[in-house]
Amino acid sequence: MGISEQYFPNEPTAPVVATTEFPGPKSQESIAALNKVFDSRASYFVADYEKSLGNYIADVDGNMYLDVYAQIASIALGYNNPALIEVAKSDLMTRAIVDRPAMGNFPSKDLEGIASEILKVAPKGQDKLWSGLSGADANELAFKAAFMWYQGKKRGYTTEFTDAENESVMKNQAPGSPELAILSFKRAFHGRLFASGSATCSKPIHKLDFPSFNWPKAEYPEYKYPLSENEAYNKEEDKRCLTIVEDIFKSWAIPIAALLVEPIQSEGGDNHGSAEFFQGLRDITLKYGAALIIDEVQTGVGATGKFWAHEHFNITPAPDFVTFSKKFQSAGYFFHDSEIVPKHTYRQFNTWCGDPARMILAGAIGSEVTKHDLAARAQEVGAYLFAKLEALQSKYPKLMKNLRGKNRATFIAWSFEEPSLRNKFLADMKTVGVNIGGCAEDSVRLRPTLVFEEKHADILAAAIEKIYSSY
Amino acid sequence: MGISEQYFPNEPTAPVVATTEFPGPKSQESIAALNKVFDSRASYFVADYEKSLGNYIADVDGNMYLDVYAQIASIALGYNNPALIEVAKSDLMTRAIVDRPAMGNFPSKDLEGIASEILKVAPKGQDKLWSGLSGADANELAFKAAFMWYQGKKRGYTTEFTDAENESVMKNQAPGSPELAILSFKRAFHGRLFASGSATCSKPIHKLDFPSFNWPKAEYPEYKYPLSENEAYNKEEDKRCLTIVEDIFKSWAIPIAALLVEPIQSEGGDNHGSAEFFQGLRDITLKYGAALIIDEVQTGVGATGKFWAHEHFNITPAPDFVTFSKKFQSAGYFFHDSEIVPKHTYRQFNTWCGDPARMILAGAIGSEVTKHDLAARAQEVGAYLFAKLEALQSKYPKLMKNLRGKNRATFIAWSFEEPSLRNKFLADMKTVGVNIGGCAEDSVRLRPTLVFEEKHADILAAAIEKIYSSY
Repeated sequence: MGISEQYFPNEPTAPVVATTEFPGPKSQESIAALNKVFDSRASYFVADYEKSLGNYIADVDGNMYLDVYAQIASIALGYNNPALIEVAKSDLMTRAIVDRPAMGNFPSKDLEGIASEILKVAPKGQDKLWSGLSGADANELAFKAAFMWYQGKKRGYTTEFTDAENESVMKNQAPGSPELAILSFKRAFHGRLFASGSATCSKPIHKLDFPSFNWPKAEYPEYKYPLSENEAYNKEEDKRCLTIVEDIFKSWAIPIAALLVEPIQSEGGDNHGSAEFFQGLRDITLKYGAALIIDEVQTGVGATGKFWAHEHFNITPAPDFVTFSKKFQSAGYFFHDSEIVPKHTYRQFNTWCGDPARMILAGAIGSEVTKHDLAARAQEVGAYLFAKLEALQSKYPKLMKNLRGKNRATFIAWSFEEPSLRNKFLADMKTVGVNIGGCAEDSVRLRPTLVFEEKHADILAAAIEKIYSSY
Repeated sequence: MGISEQYFPNEPTAPVVATTEFPGPKSQESIAALNKVFDSRASYFVADYEKSLGNYIADVDGNMYLDVYAQIASIALGYNNPALIEVAKSDLMTRAIVDRPAMGNFPSKDLEGIASEILKVAPKGQDKLWSGLSGADANELAFKAAFMWYQGKKRGYTTEFTDAENESVMKNQAPGSPELAILSFKRAFHGRLFASGSATCSKPIHKLDFPSFNWPKAEYPEYKYPLSENEAYNKEEDKRCLTIVEDIFKSWAIPIAALLVEPIQSEGGDNHGSAEFFQGLRDITLKYGAALIIDEVQTGVGATGKFWAHEHFNITPAPDFVTFSKKFQSAGYFFHDSEIVPKHTYRQFNTWCGDPARMILAGAIGSEVTKHDLAARAQEVGAYLFAKLEALQSKYPKLMKNLRGKNRATFIAWSFEEPSLRNKFLADMKTVGVNIGGCAEDSVRLRPTLVFEEKHADILAAAIEKIYSSY
């Protein structure tokens, strides 16, 4: 019995298409009512989570979609997963909800267990964590830690702050508030707050009208596909990009405290980098004394066939920070160097320091993924799906360019020749009962749950072919 | 029967002091173990939330403290409140926990009801909300909205972006990423992310080593107490500070899109401003075309005798934004101007757009506060407590300077002549079973729950006197 049947004996066996327009009439009505109090204009439809189950999401019009977008890649174990419902109804969870602690000042006796459960699935080489509330928050907390670490190295870890630092910082001026940069990449997405937004570089709409930090952007490889037929070209592409990274370290006017990178640029187009590229980045950060922050917000928690995507690369020594959120439900960063924790308390601090309710859920998700070996299972299902998509690609080469994500489980994407056609495809997939998402301007990204199996892959591939055959 | 007896028939009748050192030996052991995985060095003690009830927080050593700090002012209705436990165990909550939606794309059919429940307690004049995850996040989301609104006024609300804007923003450069400022105040606290941190100005330790925006700081009034004996002086102080605010608007090199202010500066020392001061701020923002953001993160949800503290001031027209978090458990901002919602979608957006679990709790807290009229009740209890503290002040004038917060319910503070004595006082209060917090360098802030009553005030006042009489 497959994992989806184990969790969801009543999961639908096929999508249900109940309307001819999307969003359907009831969704439209509901979206308009909601919009009076909460901006709902970006709604695909209004969901009925009571009726959603496993890989299927229900809307208020009676549609039941196979969901390969999964809340922008943030549902790990399917809708209404019974193991998570049990956790959600536990007394431990109830206390975390109603007695939300200021975890830095008044940690619960439960916290060590909760944090340790999360650390059981920490990336190789990482043994501590700090907790936040979203992907953007996780990255910005890591920035703060990296800046303190970087300045601490210069000042001396145990050296006290000078009067000049204490006074100037209150005016937002150096030396207390120094100019320091985070180096990220073109097409990167790291969040939409002001510092994370300064590192983000995928679409103007994320950033327009916001002040930002003068932080540099390097180039992320643009490989040719299939990888097996373009090895020499792609190797040169790695070199070209690594040279740009090193040039920026040498020349940028502001000292670079950390390099921030996604194992696969997700929102920016499912752009891949090789193990050699990532080892090259690690080497450069070591050479220039900068921290390496791996942003696993979208790639983490099994979807690429390993629990953390960068584990495919065996980066040595391990990254200084690995940030997480989305499918883990809880957000924050892993680290291992004890000097990442600044000497003075109350520097990496805020009222809540995370959310224990979401941390409990993260532990439970990690435990289920491990128990059922769902990362390895995703690798199998992904291989099965990838072969089906390759067959479709042979048949419809213009509708499926740069098919990518081989050996990255179900973390698969492809591109269209025109953004308008990509958008039409995403919309048309609703008519055959599939909820699917895009990335960049012209690409489709698959982000199913970890309980997506071969039978779901069959439905997805058939639905794609049905739409493609109509074009 | 008082509200605490209604909710907590088994609430302790007095603190229990079980150890001679604080944190006690079991807390110390537990803090050390926790510190291996999660920075726990700022822990006061390790709490046992299972045993905590109402106004009392238990630690793992068997101490049971009367809690007038309440998780840095973020517990509204006491520990293990039965009304909130019922909500936490509801199916609505379970779904919000296990099926966390990307609320901007796939809102739940429950969301309109959840948001509407929150809006029932919105400040006068506000009828829409946007949702975030913490106080810092709430403020930064409001900054983003204010920047879009400010630039939209200049550009034209429906005018499209220029090519120059779309291109420059990807390099973090103007005109797409313009230099814009938020004006806040010295001694203000608005959070610790990079933009909120740039607006924060209470202690160097919050900000050291972080790059920041070049944003100005005005002066917040420093009144003489008691207010009734210093009316003329304090009126002049308002004028002095308003002049500085207006001078900054006239002279700051970067355009100021919004003025950000706390109704009572909390972390920065419980500094109060008059209704006239706040109306003056409103008038200046209107004159210079800037938004007014009232930060109610710490002051909101009844603790000052009104649901929102700025409702004491009758600011006209109503503020453009009111941010919330802490005791409301959910974070975000209220607003009313429909042009605060930008014309283009996906500008105020992120994966989760808040947390429905915490929003459900906010609605329930609002409903309980309203049903039991707990803001008015806090006003009564605060008056009772203030009189007791005035009596103590007469007896120990050197240990209780600038007693403040009269007519602001239990939102009461006072100062010591020396930070070291303040710190000793906070620590000594543990020995008589009271958990109490400080603000600024030399002040004590009371932040009890809304179920804090006269009988608790008696215990608190007696405990203070016991410590004072030993000095």
